[in-house]
Amino acid sequence: MNFNLPFIPERPEKPRQSGLTMVMDKGLSLREAEDFCEVCTEYTDLVKLGFGTGLLTPKLKEKIKLYQQAGLKPYFGGTLFEAFVARNMFDDYRRFIADSGVETVEVSDGVLPIEHGKKCGYIESLAKDYVVLSEVGTKLKGKEITHEQWISWMQSELQAGAWKVIAEARESGNIGIYKEDGSADCDLVLDIRKHVNADDILWEAPLKSQQVWFIKLLGANVNLGNIANNEVIPLETLRRGLRGDTLLNFLP
Amino acid sequence: MNFNLPFIPERPEKPRQSGLTMVMDKGLSLREAEDFCEVCTEYTDLVKLGFGTGLLTPKLKEKIKLYQQAGLKPYFGGTLFEAFVARNMFDDYRRFIADSGVETVEVSDGVLPIEHGKKCGYIESLAKDYVVLSEVGTKLKGKEITHEQWISWMQSELQAGAWKVIAEARESGNIGIYKEDGSADCDLVLDIRKHVNADDILWEAPLKSQQVWFIKLLGANVNLGNIANNEVIPLETLRRGLRGDTLLNFLP
Amino acid sequence: MNFNLPFIPERPEKPRQSGLTMVMDKGLSLREAEDFCEVCTEYTDLVKLGFGTGLLTPKLKEKIKLYQQAGLKPYFGGTLFEAFVARNMFDDYRRFIADSGVETVEVSDGVLPIEHGKKCGYIESLAKDYVVLSEVGTKLKGKEITHEQWISWMQSELQAGAWKVIAEARESGNIGIYKEDGSADCDLVLDIRKHVNADDILWEAPLKSQQVWFIKLLGANVNLGNIANNEVIPLETLRRGLRGDTLLNFLP
Repeated sequence: MNFNLPFIPERPEKPRQSGLTMVMDKGLSLREAEDFCEVCTEYTDLVKLGFGTGLLTPKLKEKIKLYQQAGLKPYFGGTLFEAFVARNMFDDYRRFIADSGVETVEVSDGVLPIEHGKKCGYIESLAKDYVVLSEVGTKLKGKEITHEQWISWMQSELQAGAWKVIAEARESGNIGIYKEDGSADCDLVLDIRKHVNADDILWEAPLKSQQVWFIKLLGANVNLGNIANNEVIPLETLRRGLRGDTLLNFLP
Repeated sequence: MNFNLPFIPERPEKPRQSGLTMVMDKGLSLREAEDFCEVCTEYTDLVKLGFGTGLLTPKLKEKIKLYQQAGLKPYFGGTLFEAFVARNMFDDYRRFIADSGVETVEVSDGVLPIEHGKKCGYIESLAKDYVVLSEVGTKLKGKEITHEQWISWMQSELQAGAWKVIAEARESGNIGIYKEDGSADCDLVLDIRKHVNADDILWEAPLKSQQVWFIKLLGANVNLGNIANNEVIPLETLRRGLRGDTLLNFLP
Repeated sequence: MNFNLPFIPERPEKPRQSGLTMVMDKGLSLREAEDFCEVCTEYTDLVKLGFGTGLLTPKLKEKIKLYQQAGLKPYFGGTLFEAFVARNMFDDYRRFIADSGVETVEVSDGVLPIEHGKKCGYIESLAKDYVVLSEVGTKLKGKEITHEQWISWMQSELQAGAWKVIAEARESGNIGIYKEDGSADCDLVLDIRKHVNADDILWEAPLKSQQVWFIKLLGANVNLGNIANNEVIPLETLRRGLRGDTLLNFLP
């Protein structure tokens, strides 16, 4: 920090197990990725190349290397994994990610129905070579799952080797752990927290109101994801009580 | 693409007649325009210098040249045309655009009432020297036009020499072909489609929900416009079934 | 302007007392700040390093100098002032801002309750060395103040030495002078205008609808703030009647 204010929540040093921030890159140029790293490296842990953008942006390997050299973990959004699996091309996906240079991978079934045992098989297989993020929760309205499924799937995916489980919210923040108006499904979140270790969960929280809600409920070092690249610094001010919404929360 | 996945909708090669993406530049710097071109040139056809921003941004001619050298068609938003015509300065507008170096021009009456025969006259006149985009639909609530007017005006403007007709939605996506809540006016769109050639229409669709709706209704190569500069890659993932919303739509 | 159109509202030359635009920088990199200056310097007066971001972004002094050399007044958001005062560290705040190189400072009580006489004391003290912006209005729902308080506090803060008083709206534009749906509290604004000099007030207006509303009510040269960095050029088109919303408003 540019000035050492007291009573600012401590943030763990990187690489860390909690207080993670996962950012969504929807197609930044190399220079924009450099700009991002200049300002946000210290406050960011994971960079998701959102949905299937990884197939479309040029200079992909250079961008992946750029992020890694800045101390970040870039990885492809789960939708890309699903696009390969939907075509029965899991082995090709392994080759593609190996060739790209990433060291982190996401396994999800947000749109494509995958039998849960099979999903855990993918996690187990990939966990031998990669840091695995697995995502629980559907992207599709009408396919919502029960609290019991949320909890038992998170538990079994962690057991299968996932480093963290991601709680789905999409880029828009209106499904999964959120209601259609973007407010959190409080009962669901509390239920999950009762049965799954806090540090093991990364909550997608694209909207400021959602970030504030989670920080007030679970503290400055809650793991949050789907943060827009220009919202990392504002999020960090929330975590540290340097923004109106949390300014009074961390004072003695 | 960075990997050749099967069952991805084919996109026509540029320069193309369908599958167009038109982007809104609201005042990018030269370097930001370069960044845009690095990532998005392949997926973009038209760059609108939105509303009257063309009068205010510095290094205008350099930016226009930069876009043209990247294989894009930059042009001034129709509001600038209307600002000149409202002052009885159409000849000055011709001089201004000739001097600027653009090869594409928009004719619209989104705010300024222009008698329709006169509008077609402008189109005819400009079409001798430029690629003309003409826009149908008002920007003003309470001035909405009938289905018959939408259709017959589109037809006569194409006949007058417009390369494509643009269906108005504004940057906000809540007027013209959309209802106030941003959802599409389905009856209107289907009615237009019955009477006007699909490739001749460019639908303004600034919101993701609108892009998804049009791709599902009219296919991957529907012409879409008013896309924010950082939403071109996400839109391209929608067109190719590489995002949750359309992942299952193009599979066999 | 790239073309001298008649009937465009005149804008005062910088440095100016009215027609101010205040921009919110939420964590731009140096290069992004350069890009901003290339395009927007002529149209911008003040750059707020929003909330407590000033403590978190690297190369802070270089950025402050960069903005100053471009003819802009950078300053720290009032929340940072409040974060120091909440810790009884006002003297440290003075040292921090002196060291940073800024020449402008904001005094606010948007979240932290500060007795009003004491707030005016801070303004008076800082006004000896700095251009002072003071902000009236709470960031917290349920803490809204009466019209009489708005007016008398603005008056006494100006008397204490504030250059301008800022009318609070937050980044989201749904509190203070706005209702929860973002529409302006018309009675309040008109009441304030009756008792406080127009040029002395800077209205926060992050949403386009709010900018349009103020320009139509108070003219092209109303002071507006909390503008996103990529919305300065669009705002300038509104001020000059070069966008649909105001195109017809300044014609003879």
